[in-house]
Amino acid sequence: MPRYKLTVEYDGTGLVGWQRQDNGPSVQAALEDACAILAGGPVAVQGAGRTDAGVHALGQVAHVDLDREMAPGQLALALNFHLRPAAVAVLAAEPVHAGFHARFGAIRRSYLYRIVNRRAPLTLDEGRAWRVGRPLDVAAMAAAAALLVGRHDFSSFRAAACQADGALRTLDRLDVAAVGGEVRIVAEARSFLHSQVRFMVGTLVAIGEGRWPAAEAGRILAARDRSRAGPVAPPHGLYLARVDYPESAPAMPSATPSSTAFQTTSSTTSASA
Amino acid sequence: MPRYKLTVEYDGTGLVGWQRQDNGPSVQAALEDACAILAGGPVAVQGAGRTDAGVHALGQVAHVDLDREMAPGQLALALNFHLRPAAVAVLAAEPVHAGFHARFGAIRRSYLYRIVNRRAPLTLDEGRAWRVGRPLDVAAMAAAAALLVGRHDFSSFRAAACQADGALRTLDRLDVAAVGGEVRIVAEARSFLHSQVRFMVGTLVAIGEGRWPAAEAGRILAARDRSRAGPVAPPHGLYLARVDYPESAPAMPSATPSSTAFQTTSSTTSASA
Repeated sequence: MPRYKLTVEYDGTGLVGWQRQDNGPSVQAALEDACAILAGGPVAVQGAGRTDAGVHALGQVAHVDLDREMAPGQLALALNFHLRPAAVAVLAAEPVHAGFHARFGAIRRSYLYRIVNRRAPLTLDEGRAWRVGRPLDVAAMAAAAALLVGRHDFSSFRAAACQADGALRTLDRLDVAAVGGEVRIVAEARSFLHSQVRFMVGTLVAIGEGRWPAAEAGRILAARDRSRAGPVAPPHGLYLARVDYPESAPAMPSATPSSTAFQTTSSTTSASA
Repeated sequence: MPRYKLTVEYDGTGLVGWQRQDNGPSVQAALEDACAILAGGPVAVQGAGRTDAGVHALGQVAHVDLDREMAPGQLALALNFHLRPAAVAVLAAEPVHAGFHARFGAIRRSYLYRIVNRRAPLTLDEGRAWRVGRPLDVAAMAAAAALLVGRHDFSSFRAAACQADGALRTLDRLDVAAVGGEVRIVAEARSFLHSQVRFMVGTLVAIGEGRWPAAEAGRILAARDRSRAGPVAPPHGLYLARVDYPESAPAMPSATPSSTAFQTTSSTTSASA
């Protein structure tokens, strides 16, 4: 049975997240239902990152086995037709080798977190960014972020619901940059703990607001105690931007997803970040 | 009575446009109603550009006279409080001299038009960009755009409803650039004819799709005949990005509106573009 790799974009607003659940529409259910129409029976779709309710994706990756050969362009077209009116779109669908696994094969997951730093309410970006009213000290946030990069026990930045065995992870990148009136945070790792990105962002914002000095990020990390971290950042500022695989070809059809112009994105999570 | 300059952002989805009308919510009515609460009676709000239904703004400018002195920060805060839940936000409110006029004093209006060039439906950008499925030749579009820059009779790019006396306008800038999977068009002029930007974009897209050679833009312009232009581009890809005034201070509190990162915007229209 041919296996296909799907690159998926979605607006997480109103979704219960990636994973199929009984309490509302999920990305996985939308994709599995669309695939089932093509396959003529139930199929399972595996995703690289189990994003939480409200979290968006610019380049989620999933795989599915279908018992028919379809030209890549045709498969994306057919899936998008059946996905309507869900706010989920297949950007690319391509045949892959039988050993390809969207979740276990991923070597890097890239998340983007968007903060709009202003007092005025959001209009066009409502539900697409976290509005923070107090002026943020971006340099302090960047200095704090640098303390978190590397191989560490991230117990302080982990949801209570996290099901991972251990909290040791290697954070390859945590960049903080001011882009116009926005503060954009890019996090990259092979895998993340549950809500890790949102816990890290919450702590960086507390530092950016001047509530803590930058060095506090290092002390929170060392404490391995979730109660020490800042409040968790809301889900609607978070985007699963990109997932990479060891295959030589780039994982994404376009390195720069068109949506809202995220040009500096690149990494991910095996649990939901 | 102190006069205030307001810099306004809005999501045009579901609005009948800038101008107060009987058939639905408008930006002008939302602002006038919010100002009336502060003033304790009816007030008129004048805008720089009368954007059409569905058109967005990152930096619309308006002015209003209020018979009370308010600190700039406080005025924006109060207006935003009373604007809720309208998708209209006051980014800045500042006292200006009595001769300041948002519409007649503007010396440059900048519009941005966002095209997402892909076959997959939009999710996060739904209602915020025009999706064009056929691959666009951006170089051909840019060559065509260059033919329209300058002082010309723009009768071919003008809505039938246009009420302007003449069609002679000076187009200072019409840039076409590929940014990731997007094609962004920036148009700048002291003033535009009704729907001029959308007519120009529609023609550029027809050229980008290969239906016409780039030189056709010049022939359409010379014909001074609206029936020669391409189909009008939809309103939801258009943003009034910025309005400039001769006053030395920059017209906008931030040269780069935070929303969806439009970094290359700058100009406007006296009629709705």
